Amino acid sequence: MNTDSRNESHDSLRAVQWRGDHLRLLDQRKLPFDEQWLDRHTAGEVALAIRDLVVRGAPAIGIAAAWGVVLAAQRGDGLDAAVATLRAARPTAVNLMWALDRMRARIDAGADAAVLAREAQAIQDEDLAANRAMGAMGAALIAPGSGVLTHCNTGSLATAGFGTALGVIRAGYASGKIARVFADETRPWLQGARLTMWELQRDGVPATLIADSAASHLMKSGQVQWVIVGADRIAVNGDTANKIGTYQLAIAARHHGVKFMVVAPSTTVDLATPSGEAIAIELRNPDELLGYAGQRTVAEGAQAWNPVFDVTPHDLIDVLVTERGVITRPDAAALGAMFGNQGKR
Amino acid sequence: MNTDSRNESHDSLRAVQWRGDHLRLLDQRKLPFDEQWLDRHTAGEVALAIRDLVVRGAPAIGIAAAWGVVLAAQRGDGLDAAVATLRAARPTAVNLMWALDRMRARIDAGADAAVLAREAQAIQDEDLAANRAMGAMGAALIAPGSGVLTHCNTGSLATAGFGTALGVIRAGYASGKIARVFADETRPWLQGARLTMWELQRDGVPATLIADSAASHLMKSGQVQWVIVGADRIAVNGDTANKIGTYQLAIAARHHGVKFMVVAPSTTVDLATPSGEAIAIELRNPDELLGYAGQRTVAEGAQAWNPVFDVTPHDLIDVLVTERGVITRPDAAALGAMFGNQGKR
Repeated sequence: MNTDSRNESHDSLRAVQWRGDHLRLLDQRKLPFDEQWLDRHTAGEVALAIRDLVVRGAPAIGIAAAWGVVLAAQRGDGLDAAVATLRAARPTAVNLMWALDRMRARIDAGADAAVLAREAQAIQDEDLAANRAMGAMGAALIAPGSGVLTHCNTGSLATAGFGTALGVIRAGYASGKIARVFADETRPWLQGARLTMWELQRDGVPATLIADSAASHLMKSGQVQWVIVGADRIAVNGDTANKIGTYQLAIAARHHGVKFMVVAPSTTVDLATPSGEAIAIELRNPDELLGYAGQRTVAEGAQAWNPVFDVTPHDLIDVLVTERGVITRPDAAALGAMFGNQGKR
Repeated sequence: MNTDSRNESHDSLRAVQWRGDHLRLLDQRKLPFDEQWLDRHTAGEVALAIRDLVVRGAPAIGIAAAWGVVLAAQRGDGLDAAVATLRAARPTAVNLMWALDRMRARIDAGADAAVLAREAQAIQDEDLAANRAMGAMGAALIAPGSGVLTHCNTGSLATAGFGTALGVIRAGYASGKIARVFADETRPWLQGARLTMWELQRDGVPATLIADSAASHLMKSGQVQWVIVGADRIAVNGDTANKIGTYQLAIAARHHGVKFMVVAPSTTVDLATPSGEAIAIELRNPDELLGYAGQRTVAEGAQAWNPVFDVTPHDLIDVLVTERGVITRPDAAALGAMFGNQGKR
């Protein structure tokens, strides 16, 4: 247990910490009641930590994977195998693939462990800077005193720090744009209930938890003007894969005239994915649905279907915010103009 | 513990059982793992059982309340106080008010306990007959081999037996109209996960549990042709109060061209309620969202908003099925024509 980070604002919380020869991860499975830090020493251990959700959130798993490659290089383990193992840890978030491609390019150029460590640190530093920039740009779009609804956790825990959608919410609260935040609990893993509420409470942001199924009733009540979410992968036409339930929120937001904002670093845009149909949706163990907080709730023998992401078509998205700028009504033309210069990844 | 009902089909399960001088209730808080029966001897005890969700489901709580009045009459307790206590147990389901009004009319006509018992039994018997009739009418609307999605629990546990929406699903599966059932887990109380899955498994109906937030992704996949739900109160214009999340399903169904069916006995139609705006939405304890089964999942000090019903506007409902018949695209004119003769209640 590392007590250094206790009682800090989560604005400055760093859930993925490089310690020179190992990676220290805040175990997100145990939050909010147990702040347990785990030390991981090999790429394989990091891959397992990603698969098992010790570390989660598209930007954070990209950063952790980059450090996993550094661990392999330091130990003299096979780098090809390390990259392959890390890449297979979770299928939907493109940031994981992007970070590994970036490390791969350094490997191919003959980088040693020290150079790879500088690259991983750059990935981490750039993510934090992107989040600060997106926070300011996203918050600028919101009218003073607004209520917002968010889904899953996109905060410091899910990124290098500050957060994507939650970064906009932090910036918006700080500037008076946002008066109240509603958080979906986000079944089955309860990222909203366990993680987002914890981050917001520690920052003193007025936050109210709701059942995922109460979002439309909330919108009808007039208490929210924006839905603000992150992304795990954005196709070149703007279709966005994010936590299961995001698509439903987008449909409901459009129905109620509530604005829908996606906030993600440009590394989430996948030029190799033409549209949402091409995005692999991760199916996780049905057991995640057959119980609650470790307690079985469904009779033995029951079947469950547990897709943990869905795709929101671009025409339901009002605004896409990346660190490169704001795109209103994102589509292939607008994304091509902004991201076409990213090059093949 | 009553073992008589174990291993029976849930088609014939009776969760509310009159035993001559007390009411025996299957404790729905303990299902699916513990089939515990509770004996209740006074109207006050029955009111608490309704409030605490020992017995739940709009038709079932109406039936239980009617028997509560009988208990008061048998014991010589004050009938006015008994009716008032039972009426206050839960605010949204109109069947509770309707059943008590019907008992009240008998009381006002000078009925003794035996007459009141016959009235309660009639309420219970009529509900079962209505469910059988609705099952046949609803199933007739469905094309063979369809997939359906349901929300909450509307089965034998929620009624005198067979069920409303789940009655249509039972009848539809028996006649080959329905090939597969998807059940929302239905946070926060998990009626779908705990109760509907249990009923369907025991009847051998192929059933798959999903997170509430996965419903739109499911609809987009083409696996369901109908959403079939019950109701707690239906206004004269067709606006329908039902378990939180129903409204969201109706919006998503319309978005995907999936049909939306409401199944409820005519006693659910409230001629005193002109539209959904007039329906009181029960807010339950936020603790229901802050954990599960005594295990806390959200950090201390967190706020939650826990409305347990919402209102689906009539224009999102394709079909309303009551035992009096089927109304396509329900509205004030159609409901007035069918239910205007129910008289003031």
